[in-house]
Amino acid sequence: MTAAKYDVLGIGNAIFDVLVQTDEGFLKRHGMTKGGMALIDGDRAAAIYRDMGPATEMSGGSAANTIVGVASLGARAAYIGKVRDDQIGRLYTHDIRAAGVAFETKPAAGGPATGCSYILVTADGERTMNTYLGAAQDLTPADIDADQIAASALIYLEGYLWDPTSAKEAFVKASTIAHQAGRQVALTLSDSFCVDRYRDEFLQLMREGTVDLVFANEAELHSLYQTSDFETALKQLRSDIGLAAVTRSEKGCVVASKQGVLAVPAFPIDKIVDTTGAGDLFAAGFLFGLSRGVEYENAGRLGALAAAEVIQHIGARPQTALKELAQQNGLPV
Amino acid sequence: MTAAKYDVLGIGNAIFDVLVQTDEGFLKRHGMTKGGMALIDGDRAAAIYRDMGPATEMSGGSAANTIVGVASLGARAAYIGKVRDDQIGRLYTHDIRAAGVAFETKPAAGGPATGCSYILVTADGERTMNTYLGAAQDLTPADIDADQIAASALIYLEGYLWDPTSAKEAFVKASTIAHQAGRQVALTLSDSFCVDRYRDEFLQLMREGTVDLVFANEAELHSLYQTSDFETALKQLRSDIGLAAVTRSEKGCVVASKQGVLAVPAFPIDKIVDTTGAGDLFAAGFLFGLSRGVEYENAGRLGALAAAEVIQHIGARPQTALKELAQQNGLPV
Repeated sequence: MTAAKYDVLGIGNAIFDVLVQTDEGFLKRHGMTKGGMALIDGDRAAAIYRDMGPATEMSGGSAANTIVGVASLGARAAYIGKVRDDQIGRLYTHDIRAAGVAFETKPAAGGPATGCSYILVTADGERTMNTYLGAAQDLTPADIDADQIAASALIYLEGYLWDPTSAKEAFVKASTIAHQAGRQVALTLSDSFCVDRYRDEFLQLMREGTVDLVFANEAELHSLYQTSDFETALKQLRSDIGLAAVTRSEKGCVVASKQGVLAVPAFPIDKIVDTTGAGDLFAAGFLFGLSRGVEYENAGRLGALAAAEVIQHIGARPQTALKELAQQNGLPV
Repeated sequence: MTAAKYDVLGIGNAIFDVLVQTDEGFLKRHGMTKGGMALIDGDRAAAIYRDMGPATEMSGGSAANTIVGVASLGARAAYIGKVRDDQIGRLYTHDIRAAGVAFETKPAAGGPATGCSYILVTADGERTMNTYLGAAQDLTPADIDADQIAASALIYLEGYLWDPTSAKEAFVKASTIAHQAGRQVALTLSDSFCVDRYRDEFLQLMREGTVDLVFANEAELHSLYQTSDFETALKQLRSDIGLAAVTRSEKGCVVASKQGVLAVPAFPIDKIVDTTGAGDLFAAGFLFGLSRGVEYENAGRLGALAAAEVIQHIGARPQTALKELAQQNGLPV
């Protein structure tokens, strides 16, 4: 195994976020399930957008947010995801590169526009996402750069990739190359409804060793094992995978490994403004910690810190240099 | 004079804001004058953007921000400005309409992209703007809807319109129609460098009665009369125009009218985050007050309140319903 060029490489749906603060009535009126991610077509996207208030836009996408967080902590990071060569795709490309991430996926020259998510943030800080995949659907195995994958110590994949058909194949190709190169592969389960759509496939990925590490929140874990009992689900999770990090909002997280189960508390915060990106940034801190070879406890604390930063402002990407923030909090960076 | 359909109609350069928090070094490296608005061409826009960190985007444009503020206070508002029929132009159109503003200017089908401004916000909250006018240059007298102008009690024009050649003619056409319909016309001087470019023309607009009310900040006022003495400049201003509102940052504002000079204090705030839109939102509150026929003091206080809201977060448009905020502060809405 040669020395890695990148500490973490993420693969995901490249999505531009269109964020608006709204009230519960808006969610009800449009039949949205609060807290979830719903896939929408162009017509529904237009109907939602027409009714939405003035928005703030910024680049997003689950794995991309994670990778930006990894870079902000000071690691070498890369991303693979598909935008179109349109105005929004160019904003997207600028932002991820400006965050210090290597991003070389060729934009789609035709087909649907760059994907976007209409994110409704309610007064309690909860976000409800409506995602039009757009060009993200065109991610194919051809976009997986074998050399880049083999040169990355950790590969991070989002469960959302299971939605666009060909991205699934790209996912498996990347995992195969990574393992051949002796690298580790991580998966986030993304969303409880996403788990509901692909439960058997996600379990297979874990049981067959396509992935080595899983990130999940409580809702996703419960959905995966179709149980409302946390301990039961955790036990099953431990029998299916060697390493898992389960986030539990204000209760912190649980790291389940061969060594046992370790609980790490959340970071105290003043006020939740917008939970968009909370799980993504937890994963950023945890993956960063793994890439630095720190103990699971410190990896969990790095995750908790990055998540705490992102939920205290609008948007799913850090607004503070996470490396400095970690240093100020006495965490290893 | 028939009853007005709109309380305030604004005409300005329709500009999409690309905002980033940065350090003083960035401004120096790119030879930017802190606190100003510089016009840039496509090449310089590309060079600045390439070097900028990850950004947050939202709709902007000086008069447009004002008009959105007027609508947020509960008045009937309209806007005329030029975007292209591109992705960013559609975001722009959505946002201003979603704010409750009538916006019917036909987007350009060809030519340059929707205009945008690269706004660098430093740690002290000061903003430095670099504006690529783009499609805003294509605003022409044909875009001035005579019926809409005649149906608006107050017309608000930005000095920045003096930069694109044909917008100037649109400006004069709008003023002529407004006055024929017995309406009032207001002008903001926009920026001290803008005043420096068009000093004689701005003075002529005031002296010949093309405009009835002027908004300026101290720097613009000093630039207009080429004096560093505030009282001298104010005296000259009073001899040139019947009504003027001069903003003085934390010192509040001065309303100069036939009745005399009235000082109105600023609203106390916790922390300045981003001054982008401060002057625009002051004008929103003041114009709203005039449209409601309140005393100058309360108009000034409404301006101060709206400005205080906008400088406490990133971006130049209100994130709080200004009508409720004014009610909470005992101001007439």
